[in-house]
Amino acid sequence: MPLSTELWVAIPDSALSEQGTKRDKSMMVSQIARACSIFRVTRIYIYHDKTTRFTKVDLNLLKIILKFLNTPPYLRKLVYPMVDQLQFSGLLHPIIAPHHKPFQNLREVTEGEVRVGLIVQRGGTLYAYVGLRDLIRFKGNARVDSILNLKFMAGYPHQYVVEASAEDIGDKYWGYEVLETVDLTSLMSNQPNALLLFTSRAGVKLRKIEGRLIKRLRSAQNLLVIFGAPKSGLAEILKNEKKDIRSFEFVVNSFPMQGTRTVRLEEAILGTLAIVNHILIASNGMTGHYQL
Amino acid sequence: MPLSTELWVAIPDSALSEQGTKRDKSMMVSQIARACSIFRVTRIYIYHDKTTRFTKVDLNLLKIILKFLNTPPYLRKLVYPMVDQLQFSGLLHPIIAPHHKPFQNLREVTEGEVRVGLIVQRGGTLYAYVGLRDLIRFKGNARVDSILNLKFMAGYPHQYVVEASAEDIGDKYWGYEVLETVDLTSLMSNQPNALLLFTSRAGVKLRKIEGRLIKRLRSAQNLLVIFGAPKSGLAEILKNEKKDIRSFEFVVNSFPMQGTRTVRLEEAILGTLAIVNHILIASNGMTGHYQL
Repeated sequence: MPLSTELWVAIPDSALSEQGTKRDKSMMVSQIARACSIFRVTRIYIYHDKTTRFTKVDLNLLKIILKFLNTPPYLRKLVYPMVDQLQFSGLLHPIIAPHHKPFQNLREVTEGEVRVGLIVQRGGTLYAYVGLRDLIRFKGNARVDSILNLKFMAGYPHQYVVEASAEDIGDKYWGYEVLETVDLTSLMSNQPNALLLFTSRAGVKLRKIEGRLIKRLRSAQNLLVIFGAPKSGLAEILKNEKKDIRSFEFVVNSFPMQGTRTVRLEEAILGTLAIVNHILIASNGMTGHYQL
Repeated sequence: MPLSTELWVAIPDSALSEQGTKRDKSMMVSQIARACSIFRVTRIYIYHDKTTRFTKVDLNLLKIILKFLNTPPYLRKLVYPMVDQLQFSGLLHPIIAPHHKPFQNLREVTEGEVRVGLIVQRGGTLYAYVGLRDLIRFKGNARVDSILNLKFMAGYPHQYVVEASAEDIGDKYWGYEVLETVDLTSLMSNQPNALLLFTSRAGVKLRKIEGRLIKRLRSAQNLLVIFGAPKSGLAEILKNEKKDIRSFEFVVNSFPMQGTRTVRLEEAILGTLAIVNHILIASNGMTGHYQL
C-alpha cells in the first residue's frame, strides 16, 4: 500500500522584515496562509533566521495570524478574544477549507461527522463548543480550553462527541500546525521522515530533479520545502549555521529565467508549491493526500 | 532553428470586482503585474466579461496600474503626472525588470545600449528623455510624447538615439503590453500564432497534457493562458458567448486537489505561470525566451 505524503513548509521568523506597516505585514501573512492551505500543507515551521535583524513583534504577528486564519471562523472570537495582532484581520482574505465548517442545524449533523471544537466545563462536566447552537457533551479526557478534532457519536438528540482519529478525518485537508524551531540545523536534524527541498536562486531547475525527487519521496514519506528570508537566501542562512548549501541533495530554483530582480517570499511559496503539487499529483490516486 | 515562444495572458475586465477598496484593488493589480513580470509575460489581454457587473472605474484602475508598473520609474512622473488611479502607487511592490534601468552617468552609457525613452521636441528638433541627466538627440521619425525603445549610437559626447529593434533588445525581458479586447471570441479569433490554454477548475490536470502542449507549441509559437473571472469561471463566460469550453483542446486545472474552496485570480495567475514556466523550461536553451 502506498504511503501518504504530507507537504510541510519552513519559513524564517524574519519573513515580515521588509513590510513597512502592520497592515501590509498582516496581508503578507494571509497570503502565506492561503498559499499553504491551497496546497494542503499540514505543518508550517518557523525557523530562527540569525542573519536578519527583526523584532519579536513581527514574529508574534506571523504566528498569531497564521494560527488565527487556520482556526474555524466559529472558534475565532473565543480563542482570540481581543488580540492586538488581529487589528487587520477583517481585511484578510479568508481561507475556506474543509475544517472550516459552516453552521448547521443539530438535527442535520450525522454520526461520524468531525468538527473542530473547544473543550469547556459546565458544572463539573466537559462539553465541546463546535460552532452549533448547543454545547455538545464531550466523553473522554481533555484539558479545558484545548482545541480538538471531535467526532459526533449517536444520533440527535442523544449526540455526544469524542476525540477524532486521523482515520475519522480521512483524506480531507484539515489545516496546518504552526511550529517553531531555533534554527535550520535543529529543524533538519529532527526530520527522519521528511525529504528536504531547499529553495535558492542558485539551485538547479526543479525540472531537472523532479524524477529523482519522486523516487526518493517514496521512502522519505513527507516533503519539507524550505524557504529563505527576504533579506538573505538559504545559502547565507545555512552558512551562518556553518553548513554548506551545496552539501544537500535537493537545492532548487523554482523560477528559472525570472524576469524580475527578486521574487518575494509569499510569491516563492505559492509558485514553488504550485510546481510541487503539479509534480506530485502525477503519481497520485484520487485521494486528498499524495500517494507515492 | 528553434522559434522563440512568448508567454501571453488574458484576464477579465471584472478582475477587481471582489475587492472592496481602491487600496485593495490597487494591491491586487500589482500582484498580477508582478506575477506576469516574474514569468516574462509580453502581452496582457483584458477581455470583456459580460457575466459580471462591474464599473469602468475598476477597468481603468486595472489598465493604468498595469501600465504604470511596467513603465521604467524614471518615466512615471512624466507619463502619469497626477492620476487619481495612482493614489496608492507608493504602496505597491515594485517590479524591477531589465527595462527598468537605473540612472547612469552619460559617459558610462555604451553604444548599442537600449533604454526606454519619451520623445520630446525642443526648438523643432526631436529629443528623447531616457532617465539620464540630459535629453538625447533622437534621429528618425516618431510622434512627440510617444514612448519607444531607443538604442544609443556613437560614443560620449556625440551620443544620439534611434529606435531599437527586437534584435537590439535581444533576449532580455522587456516588459509587457496591455491590450483590450471586446470578448473571448474576438480574442481567440485573432490568435493565429498562439496556442490557447484555458484555466478552469473543471479542466484536466496540467500534468496530463504537458507533453502534448510542448509538442503543439512548436508550431503554434506563442502560448496564451486565459483566466476566468472572480465571480464566473471560463466555462460560464464562454457559454455566455455561445461557446462550449469542452470544444477546446487545452482546458486545465492548475490546482488539482486544492485545499481551499476557491483560488483567487491573482493566485491562479502566479501558480499557473509557475507551472507553465517549469514545463517550458525543460526544452529551453539558456536564453531569455523559451526555445521549443
